[in-house]
Amino acid sequence: MTDLRFTHDPQLRSFASDNCAGAHPEVLAAVVAANEGHLPSYGHDGYTAAFEDLVRDLFGPAATAYPVFTGTGANVVALAMMTDRWDAVICTETAHVNVDECGAPEKLAGVKLLAVPTDDGKLTPSLVESKEWLLGFEHHAQPRVVTLTQATELGTVYSVDELAALCDAAHRIGLSVHLDGARLANAAAGLGVSLGELTTAVGVDVVSLGGTKNGLLGAEAVVVLNPEAVRAPRYIRKLTTQLPSKTRFISAQLLALYGTDLWLRSAAHANAMATRLAAAVGEIPGVQVTRPVQANAVFAILDPAAAEQVRRSYPFYTWDEARGEVRWMCSFDTREQDVDAFVACVAEAANTALPLTTDGPAH
Amino acid sequence: MTDLRFTHDPQLRSFASDNCAGAHPEVLAAVVAANEGHLPSYGHDGYTAAFEDLVRDLFGPAATAYPVFTGTGANVVALAMMTDRWDAVICTETAHVNVDECGAPEKLAGVKLLAVPTDDGKLTPSLVESKEWLLGFEHHAQPRVVTLTQATELGTVYSVDELAALCDAAHRIGLSVHLDGARLANAAAGLGVSLGELTTAVGVDVVSLGGTKNGLLGAEAVVVLNPEAVRAPRYIRKLTTQLPSKTRFISAQLLALYGTDLWLRSAAHANAMATRLAAAVGEIPGVQVTRPVQANAVFAILDPAAAEQVRRSYPFYTWDEARGEVRWMCSFDTREQDVDAFVACVAEAANTALPLTTDGPAH
Amino acid sequence: MTDLRFTHDPQLRSFASDNCAGAHPEVLAAVVAANEGHLPSYGHDGYTAAFEDLVRDLFGPAATAYPVFTGTGANVVALAMMTDRWDAVICTETAHVNVDECGAPEKLAGVKLLAVPTDDGKLTPSLVESKEWLLGFEHHAQPRVVTLTQATELGTVYSVDELAALCDAAHRIGLSVHLDGARLANAAAGLGVSLGELTTAVGVDVVSLGGTKNGLLGAEAVVVLNPEAVRAPRYIRKLTTQLPSKTRFISAQLLALYGTDLWLRSAAHANAMATRLAAAVGEIPGVQVTRPVQANAVFAILDPAAAEQVRRSYPFYTWDEARGEVRWMCSFDTREQDVDAFVACVAEAANTALPLTTDGPAH
Amino acid sequence: MTDLRFTHDPQLRSFASDNCAGAHPEVLAAVVAANEGHLPSYGHDGYTAAFEDLVRDLFGPAATAYPVFTGTGANVVALAMMTDRWDAVICTETAHVNVDECGAPEKLAGVKLLAVPTDDGKLTPSLVESKEWLLGFEHHAQPRVVTLTQATELGTVYSVDELAALCDAAHRIGLSVHLDGARLANAAAGLGVSLGELTTAVGVDVVSLGGTKNGLLGAEAVVVLNPEAVRAPRYIRKLTTQLPSKTRFISAQLLALYGTDLWLRSAAHANAMATRLAAAVGEIPGVQVTRPVQANAVFAILDPAAAEQVRRSYPFYTWDEARGEVRWMCSFDTREQDVDAFVACVAEAANTALPLTTDGPAH
Repeated sequence: MTDLRFTHDPQLRSFASDNCAGAHPEVLAAVVAANEGHLPSYGHDGYTAAFEDLVRDLFGPAATAYPVFTGTGANVVALAMMTDRWDAVICTETAHVNVDECGAPEKLAGVKLLAVPTDDGKLTPSLVESKEWLLGFEHHAQPRVVTLTQATELGTVYSVDELAALCDAAHRIGLSVHLDGARLANAAAGLGVSLGELTTAVGVDVVSLGGTKNGLLGAEAVVVLNPEAVRAPRYIRKLTTQLPSKTRFISAQLLALYGTDLWLRSAAHANAMATRLAAAVGEIPGVQVTRPVQANAVFAILDPAAAEQVRRSYPFYTWDEARGEVRWMCSFDTREQDVDAFVACVAEAANTALPLTTDGPAH
Repeated sequence: MTDLRFTHDPQLRSFASDNCAGAHPEVLAAVVAANEGHLPSYGHDGYTAAFEDLVRDLFGPAATAYPVFTGTGANVVALAMMTDRWDAVICTETAHVNVDECGAPEKLAGVKLLAVPTDDGKLTPSLVESKEWLLGFEHHAQPRVVTLTQATELGTVYSVDELAALCDAAHRIGLSVHLDGARLANAAAGLGVSLGELTTAVGVDVVSLGGTKNGLLGAEAVVVLNPEAVRAPRYIRKLTTQLPSKTRFISAQLLALYGTDLWLRSAAHANAMATRLAAAVGEIPGVQVTRPVQANAVFAILDPAAAEQVRRSYPFYTWDEARGEVRWMCSFDTREQDVDAFVACVAEAANTALPLTTDGPAH
Repeated sequence: MTDLRFTHDPQLRSFASDNCAGAHPEVLAAVVAANEGHLPSYGHDGYTAAFEDLVRDLFGPAATAYPVFTGTGANVVALAMMTDRWDAVICTETAHVNVDECGAPEKLAGVKLLAVPTDDGKLTPSLVESKEWLLGFEHHAQPRVVTLTQATELGTVYSVDELAALCDAAHRIGLSVHLDGARLANAAAGLGVSLGELTTAVGVDVVSLGGTKNGLLGAEAVVVLNPEAVRAPRYIRKLTTQLPSKTRFISAQLLALYGTDLWLRSAAHANAMATRLAAAVGEIPGVQVTRPVQANAVFAILDPAAAEQVRRSYPFYTWDEARGEVRWMCSFDTREQDVDAFVACVAEAANTALPLTTDGPAH
Repeated sequence: MTDLRFTHDPQLRSFASDNCAGAHPEVLAAVVAANEGHLPSYGHDGYTAAFEDLVRDLFGPAATAYPVFTGTGANVVALAMMTDRWDAVICTETAHVNVDECGAPEKLAGVKLLAVPTDDGKLTPSLVESKEWLLGFEHHAQPRVVTLTQATELGTVYSVDELAALCDAAHRIGLSVHLDGARLANAAAGLGVSLGELTTAVGVDVVSLGGTKNGLLGAEAVVVLNPEAVRAPRYIRKLTTQLPSKTRFISAQLLALYGTDLWLRSAAHANAMATRLAAAVGEIPGVQVTRPVQANAVFAILDPAAAEQVRRSYPFYTWDEARGEVRWMCSFDTREQDVDAFVACVAEAANTALPLTTDGPAH
């Protein structure tokens, strides 16, 4: 037999992504508990039925749920359910669907994306209305859906009022609203509102409900709030390769997260760690926090040499190389001491690096 | 908080699919062991690296591996890697890619399937060659890949010689060979050969390496044996929504299965249970086993009323309603006493049901 | 300036395809007459409006028309209008959509084709019903359309009763009917019925109405008989690249053909030439006419060496190399003397070639 | 027989589009001359061979040509030839491929468009380079092609130097260059350079060579200048439904246009008419020409009420409703008296309309 040599340093703390954390122990326990015996496959098991019940409790009696594997999967499945072959989807230029899905919305679902530049990662009613002129003329792909990300890719959060205004604007011109909620829990925790208040109540039609980034092994769900906004969800999920065969294990994870207050505890904790981090690095000379911290992301500009030095101890991504902007993500399992040690590392690097750049170009 | 009411009868034994079983305890343990701390996401973790090493050990030094979530995902990713926009893929009419993937090969990858009728679920060199005339003329989608299923959807197994002859025939006319190995372990166990002897050695170019049906929570891999048969595998996997973010948990499952002899133990056991089942039901008057049992599936014809009666206690699928043919699958965790109790149930039903049909049409 | 050297032998007579003929003089005259001045583009001109009126006259008051460029274009546009992303289309294995469109239905429209083997190129109600079991289960692409070719690719013609029975069978299980009418005129001329009797009256939902093969420069139309069978026809046509900008020239051709009895005169003549050809070659020893001549195609088996010798003077296609079967097509402008000279050429070749094969395998 | 009632006012002069004109008499004559007898279909005729020769003369010995029906068809075929499934194409936000093709590049070819805002419809090297960061990371669709429109959709023209710099920038980072030349003739006429100087000489890889907008019935061609920038052009054209069956009639049009100086005469005339128009309307109080007139388009802002009044006599499009900007196109057959009468009509309308808006918001 093969000698399995794999490296796994459980001491490593990463600020690269909330995907770098593992699963919450309660989630692991739920998966183990779901393991025994034989259950119907492809979503006809009791765990999936229970998750469907739960979704109705959380999002209202019309809500239906379709567990899937990944955020990209959830988004593509959701957009494909909501559109026809001739349709287009309005999004921000920084949206995950536009930047980070290798073109899957276009390539799998044949959706045209109308990507709108924004400063803060947030669409507005007037940005949505700026695409209204495309409607009704066969030469243009037809706007059909507005997709929002909540919390946004820039760590910002739409307020309940902003969401309501956006949904109104979209519906007024006949468009539906999709919400990419890979970090919906972080937004809800940040705003102190329920999941339903942030979605069903404001008029969102379909949600990609996150899970993996909030402590699951790997599970998300497409949640349809308005059945009239979608067609053939089961077929679309299957043909997009996102129907799990042993669905019980996906649904059990989602139940563990959303069937208790685990989603809220975990998200609130990650947000708090981001706030702690931003407050501390904001005090460091040479480090500039660039965006409001409303969820679990901190964006900052610091000297590239300093960034490089920090990266030797902690993984994280450069967000905008031209500006020298980096992104630091906190997770459900980021500890206060992790933040503090990281801040100390940044402070040291900034202190070391600063002299090198005093007469160089400003950053 | 919501009251979670889910039904889960751990005593239920299903013969519907090897997807109805849960995960092997060794697999669960591996997932738990991989959980601690922060690891790089999207395949840059140590577990995935170790699985890549393992795949080289098992399939040869040129082999590369791309963990994915499902069998449909593996097949679509594999075929998309192996084809261009103008290509076609030769398969049997009963192939999973043709019948059970909701058209995903056509709808996601734009592949044209050339589905060939067969009696036993197995392609032959002359069936492959029968499509050669399509080559080189712009009016025809161009045959580029032959896809085989091993073990087949009909429970039969290609011998090593049959595979070698098929690969030769395909390569001779410029086609590559994909092997849908959702049950490759069952075929290898049935034939008593290694995974490499059944794939690399006979000339297969790309394998969809199964896992879920052999006791994983949910994990498969596309294994590329011939790098020249594919293009851009990482991009294709990502845009097909099959790139796991927390890849460590997918790779840890695959390591637990293929890094020890677990794959072989589990598959051999499932096969043995199918053999036991076929032998016993074959003795029951009114039950006719319809196909050779070479892996973990048993196909049989029995009176529909009898089938209906058995189904009250045990889930299973009707395979061909017109012929009254049903399919019974065994799993890694099917026990001898499960088989024996099931056989007794079939015997009783067949005995009860027979009088009802004595003057009806023979089956 | 460049010296334009092109070869054009106006004496050449081809039996390869009805696409090898030019345009009927009445068609050319209509194009010239439509040329003057400025007209709205993209279908908003008077010629297109007149063609839309004409289509209502010919096919009934609910009929709408969408002029396009080619038969492949008409078929792909029609099938895309009639299907959703999860759908499948039942066709014969010999159908143009299955063999001769480079996979465009799958690759552009994402349609799965369910190709059924037939002897005579004609579907039957029971062949349609044999796919009913796929309906309603998310693992299968969903049959939605039955597509028939009239006249078929094998030169045969569905009777009015056969069409009515097929449409009934399709509608009974919820499917729509598309008719690839690239040679609908030949079928109508052969049967002695009107275009409406062959389509609207029997329950066809959408027709690809041919033109090019019956003496146009290049023009076809998608004719929708049942508006409920399609969605967004204008968008589908545009995004399939089949919306002509100077539509007047496409519509003027269609008007010239279908606004007088030109379509019938031309088709009846082509059919008569095929009948003359079949009758004459049927008398030649060593030549066997293989299929009923019901439109403008003649299929025959003759010695490959003889075929080769004829081909030195007359272009035509081999239909089935294994059987030595060839296809000879007649056009609106095939003359009696062309047929007679061709028959003489075949007779001489058959006579010459026969001795070479007397002791070879029979054909 | 049906009474054909179609409206055709040959006195109407339109400034809506160069698509509203008919065909040049020389073109009609060429089509008529190509009509006689039987010729091979699907591009194997002498006219197509002659056009292929001509393209080598005009664009260099490596150039190959693929006649198609429409500009959208040419663009989609060209981009599909130049890209793989995981690729993206950089274009301006105003590009025809982005706005006016109903999403065909995304929906048919699966291409992701990276649309860049510009003031003048022209890309620059630094705009191209701004997408370089997407390269090499599987989460991003991979930039592979830069597509330019020449003359642009805003009536502007890239200089030879600008094109050379753009091609250099694209090639430097591994991208190919596609040029949408629906109005390439107008650009060449405006700049006083040859077609080759504007394409092959500066490093363009593939051209959509226009024809319809410059006096053809309906014919364009994909011209491949760099064979290494494309794959499988014949298959791509066929499966995109853009292979003409009676190709002789498409090629004969292209020969008539590009085989003499007709392309230049017609384009230069249309440009001159636009210049005359712009000069005259620029003198009218209340009318502001908004963009440089470098080809055959004039953009202007005038009072909406005045625009409305002019539209009662002359069709034209509003370009930007918010700004009150309209577009006036001249054709090969626009006459000086047409321009002068149109200018008089605008002057009268502007004069009438002005008082209505004196105390309204400035335009």
